[in-house]
Amino acid sequence: MAPKTNLQLIQECDNFPYYEDDSEFYERHMSNYHTFKVNGCNAVLGYIPNSIVEKFHWIENDWKVDSTARTVTLMAAPDAEPAVRNEIMTRLIAEAVRRETFEVLKGWRNEMYPIYAPGGKFLMEIERCASPLFGIITYGVHMTGYVEDEKEGMKLWVARRSKTKQTYPNMLDNTAAGGMSTGEHPYACAIREAAEEASIPAAVFEERARPVGVLTYFYVRDARAGGETGLLQPEIEYVYDIKLDASHTVKPCDSEVEDFRLWTVDEVRQSLKEGEWKPNCAVVILDFLIRHGILTPENEPDYLEIMARIHRRLPFPTVKFLK
Amino acid sequence: MAPKTNLQLIQECDNFPYYEDDSEFYERHMSNYHTFKVNGCNAVLGYIPNSIVEKFHWIENDWKVDSTARTVTLMAAPDAEPAVRNEIMTRLIAEAVRRETFEVLKGWRNEMYPIYAPGGKFLMEIERCASPLFGIITYGVHMTGYVEDEKEGMKLWVARRSKTKQTYPNMLDNTAAGGMSTGEHPYACAIREAAEEASIPAAVFEERARPVGVLTYFYVRDARAGGETGLLQPEIEYVYDIKLDASHTVKPCDSEVEDFRLWTVDEVRQSLKEGEWKPNCAVVILDFLIRHGILTPENEPDYLEIMARIHRRLPFPTVKFLK
Repeated sequence: MAPKTNLQLIQECDNFPYYEDDSEFYERHMSNYHTFKVNGCNAVLGYIPNSIVEKFHWIENDWKVDSTARTVTLMAAPDAEPAVRNEIMTRLIAEAVRRETFEVLKGWRNEMYPIYAPGGKFLMEIERCASPLFGIITYGVHMTGYVEDEKEGMKLWVARRSKTKQTYPNMLDNTAAGGMSTGEHPYACAIREAAEEASIPAAVFEERARPVGVLTYFYVRDARAGGETGLLQPEIEYVYDIKLDASHTVKPCDSEVEDFRLWTVDEVRQSLKEGEWKPNCAVVILDFLIRHGILTPENEPDYLEIMARIHRRLPFPTVKFLK
Repeated sequence: MAPKTNLQLIQECDNFPYYEDDSEFYERHMSNYHTFKVNGCNAVLGYIPNSIVEKFHWIENDWKVDSTARTVTLMAAPDAEPAVRNEIMTRLIAEAVRRETFEVLKGWRNEMYPIYAPGGKFLMEIERCASPLFGIITYGVHMTGYVEDEKEGMKLWVARRSKTKQTYPNMLDNTAAGGMSTGEHPYACAIREAAEEASIPAAVFEERARPVGVLTYFYVRDARAGGETGLLQPEIEYVYDIKLDASHTVKPCDSEVEDFRLWTVDEVRQSLKEGEWKPNCAVVILDFLIRHGILTPENEPDYLEIMARIHRRLPFPTVKFLK
């Protein structure tokens, strides 16, 4: 296999078309989707492939499907509480599970993901594995543990995913990462995942980790993600750097990680070229290498395109953590 | 004056509309512009306001203006050398200077800015002050000198612009910054500006500065930029952090800077709220505060919108520094 360029790694995660690249193609492409809305809120919350719209058993009164405007609207009263919308969604998904309509619903997580209105108002939630059916934004945290070695320079703590993981088994992963469920805040999620996945104690995280930005991309799911292909997964990943002591050893805690290795930047870059990384973890590493001055405008010909693509402005409302 | 939010500061720099916010408004808005092209290259290189197209004296054979398709095309042969395109552009601009057609041309810089084709091929160049008439991408570098003070925490070297500067007199500015002319690379430009504007010796820069990313935004010029308003200035700013010793004093070198002060993060944040910063320098500071974990997802409600807006994917081809 030819070595992958860094831009190719980005393109594996950010592969939904851009209007500005070819507006006619984009508009034609958009006719493959229904927009997902809730009654009383003008914003589009996600895109649902037409093929998925056809397979759901939409319950009248609960849902309004307009195949001309290509919209699917959840019909709770405009001023309904989130719980009312949740019930309608749960009813729909439960029926799809019963009928075994969708592959992705076989990966039930029992974890709820939030959906927000403009201004960051919490609208409702949806079971994690059902979220790509509606193409809503999902939120997560990723963190990179690293060491400044006096002799060998910077080294990164790299995880190898367990061989038995449902998705991307045996691929390389960030030091720790995880999805944010309803109500969770990025920092709290990061501190939990650091402990659960990489045995990093909360006190170490609090002293040594810092938030360094957020990465966003618009992912069209392929076979490696499992389940139906072509589902949309616009993602927001809050990113943390953890500068660890050379004496600190990162070790697995739960069964999700096979092992950890402390790699030089050259070893990391070689493994990226060889396509060994889970796609969205490669994005996190590339951002790390850019922020730490290892990838530069002069040594990475696609520097500009990479930076814009991993900070994509998504076309849906997003969370606001209010002060 | 009400204190400015960080998002408001970003909006002052990134104020060209987004297709995804309101596609009908966007398309109506685009009818105010002609696209700028060169013969033989399919890409759009910039947007020219219709009011500017009307005022230029387009020379037949040199230029093709199509008011139905709303395109202005520079008609050198498709395989022409850049010098041929440059001559055509120079002829047009010289005539506009002679007739005093445009205010912006009174700020002649005698500095050439490059224009690239897709793939990063150098197409031609244009006098710096004329570039907003064509709405082409311009490139620059910005850097932030900072100190880790044991008692007071992080402090930033902030410049006050000279009272006599043509643009944004007396406003706050980054430690050093400057535009990249044809042929210049970011690192070389940064090292030059650090010496010229902040008396930072090349050896100090080489030891202590690192490239940390690139900021991009689409600026619609207002009165503060000088000259015609409504001209477009999509910008790309390569960003550097310079971690200085507490003993190092940053001092002005040329006449562009009034003085430097070493400010705490709180002092910097207060001055941002008070609107004291040149708009695109505020963007650089906000990115710095995010990368250094001072602005966080939890304390900045517009974290996501800010990060996407300052890494905007511009709709024109960009430079590639080839390895």
